[in-house]
Amino acid sequence: MHRFHCFPGKGKEGVMQKMEEDERRVVANKQIVLKHYVSGYMKETDMELKSSTVTLCRLPHGSEGGVLLKNLYLACDPYMRHRMSTHVSQTGTLLTSFLPGSVLKGYGVGKVIESSHPNFKEGDLVWGITGWEEFSMIPNPEGLFKIKYANVPLSYYTGILGMPGIAAYVGFFEICSPKKGETIYVSSAAGGVGQLVGQFAKMMGCYVVGSASTKEKVDLLKNKLGFDDAFNYKEEHDLAATLKRYFPQGIDIYFDNVGGHTLDEVLLHMKIHGRIAVSGMISQYNLKEPQGIHNLFSLITKRIRMEGFLEADFEHLHPQYLELAINYLRGGKLVYVEDIADGLENAPSALVGIFHGHNVGKQVVRVAYELTLLIESCLL
Amino acid sequence: MHRFHCFPGKGKEGVMQKMEEDERRVVANKQIVLKHYVSGYMKETDMELKSSTVTLCRLPHGSEGGVLLKNLYLACDPYMRHRMSTHVSQTGTLLTSFLPGSVLKGYGVGKVIESSHPNFKEGDLVWGITGWEEFSMIPNPEGLFKIKYANVPLSYYTGILGMPGIAAYVGFFEICSPKKGETIYVSSAAGGVGQLVGQFAKMMGCYVVGSASTKEKVDLLKNKLGFDDAFNYKEEHDLAATLKRYFPQGIDIYFDNVGGHTLDEVLLHMKIHGRIAVSGMISQYNLKEPQGIHNLFSLITKRIRMEGFLEADFEHLHPQYLELAINYLRGGKLVYVEDIADGLENAPSALVGIFHGHNVGKQVVRVAYELTLLIESCLL
Repeated sequence: MHRFHCFPGKGKEGVMQKMEEDERRVVANKQIVLKHYVSGYMKETDMELKSSTVTLCRLPHGSEGGVLLKNLYLACDPYMRHRMSTHVSQTGTLLTSFLPGSVLKGYGVGKVIESSHPNFKEGDLVWGITGWEEFSMIPNPEGLFKIKYANVPLSYYTGILGMPGIAAYVGFFEICSPKKGETIYVSSAAGGVGQLVGQFAKMMGCYVVGSASTKEKVDLLKNKLGFDDAFNYKEEHDLAATLKRYFPQGIDIYFDNVGGHTLDEVLLHMKIHGRIAVSGMISQYNLKEPQGIHNLFSLITKRIRMEGFLEADFEHLHPQYLELAINYLRGGKLVYVEDIADGLENAPSALVGIFHGHNVGKQVVRVAYELTLLIESCLL
Repeated sequence: MHRFHCFPGKGKEGVMQKMEEDERRVVANKQIVLKHYVSGYMKETDMELKSSTVTLCRLPHGSEGGVLLKNLYLACDPYMRHRMSTHVSQTGTLLTSFLPGSVLKGYGVGKVIESSHPNFKEGDLVWGITGWEEFSMIPNPEGLFKIKYANVPLSYYTGILGMPGIAAYVGFFEICSPKKGETIYVSSAAGGVGQLVGQFAKMMGCYVVGSASTKEKVDLLKNKLGFDDAFNYKEEHDLAATLKRYFPQGIDIYFDNVGGHTLDEVLLHMKIHGRIAVSGMISQYNLKEPQGIHNLFSLITKRIRMEGFLEADFEHLHPQYLELAINYLRGGKLVYVEDIADGLENAPSALVGIFHGHNVGKQVVRVAYELTLLIESCLL
């Protein structure tokens, strides 16, 4: 089997010269590129669709260790907006800024087209961080995960079986330390993470209320996803009264996907020894300056634990979670709702849309169909 | 032995009528009373010294279960300011508002003058919540702790051997989960809690830097209390640069006694998996509106745990802590600095002073001398 070294059209002349012309293959590659740093609400025009190419070149076995992916699905994750702002990249944080002119990166599902890494072979399906483009060269594929259970919709690996699913699982069970009978509030509850947190909470015998931005989503939470109750936060103009109505005795666990004023108000409604899992802050990413949180003194008076987390720290829990999730999906004990936009060219509008609540369920972009996989997935 | 029922001069005529005149004893009782709810920086004139009396009346044994204390020392604790504001008393929180016209309450040390509670007898020394007055009737003394080790300065039971000591101990060891070699920042480091946290951090083999409001306190931190370094925050006009200078690799643990802008800036200087123990917010108690905290997104990017606590939740750890602290004090391994104001009439100015950094070490008010105890304490 030939091994290829894969890289964008430009550069690496030195390496190129060592190769024979007939060992190269040029492939068209549409890409979504960040045009400039974004300030305020992001717009489609902050990104652009570019036509590029990828050149595949045979390389000596194992010389590079990269893989070339054909991207199938891309996740529209709220944190991506944060990476579009100019800000100091803090040492060791995973959320450094994208560079203007470069291809966006995010979680996705792809098929290995070529590999010079011993852990991956042609045809493998993987999920992990990839580029917003048709083909991505991943120089260091250590952060990619091989897909073991393929007879589910592959897009699920951008959601329930990928980062958001693991985030919901570790965020709820590891960070929130839930107990039967406790009261849980989940914001952005119809999103990829929130919809799962609500279902996990019900499995634990908790009382769970979610909030979302439309009636359709509220109905989804109540009727399909099993939340005890749900409300449309856009129709509630006195959040204090709303929280008092749904949680007259207070909130044991707040699973925070939004931050900002909601977090600030929730602090006043927490119970003693409450826990706040800080999962995301979608309300803040498009603001020039994050809103100030004024009620942190509640952390003392109520002895609250507030903890941020990233699923990346819990790789050791992936296998047990995936087995659980697959079994629950197959048994109908977990439901998962996604909103799929078709075609890479629609990725910018899909991403912008999540900040306006346009999606119902996890927003995904389908970059390419894989027909055989599509048929398999129907067997679920 | 006679048992007394003790209550203020006014009221309870029904009970009074049952008693003989000669079974009563009237005692003068100076008190510090809250005049009105405080807004903004508190002033001495927000409190007033009142002359009152306490009447002691013999009661059938065990009928009430209260104790009468002669107060010896009172603690000037920053959280008391919080209780002087008008605010909604939240269910289950310990920090409800004082009532205007009523005697201030706080931690103190007292001697039992009379008791109808089976756990306490005349002559017992105790610490716990008492009134800012010469004599306090404690109807339910379950929250008082008997002083076991008396051959130390009794005032220490408002500090190193009382609430602040236990807060430092549980806050550092239980909430911060420190590890050898970690970097620790302590704000308000010369206060009752901070000075102990720094010493505990050194015992753990950590690198610890404290901040305080005067050169004298900074010298104390460096030369007497064993901090690796210290700075006067009033002389540092660029806290970001200051923190970068003392913590070029970032902060593992922030022991927060001040809240506000300091907390906000520290969030940007925390290391991955850092911990913030939220112990107090002295910078905020006198503000009409707490300052907004804008950098909570760092909780996610750096997976920080931020946790509030009250020592009252850790009563089970009192015995082990007290034994440790007494042994360390006697062995000279722990040093404790306090600032004693003499006389109840000076209590208001002492309390106001802590919000302007006037005290060096824990601010205490001596209400009464107990000569025999004073001599004993010199044996330490």
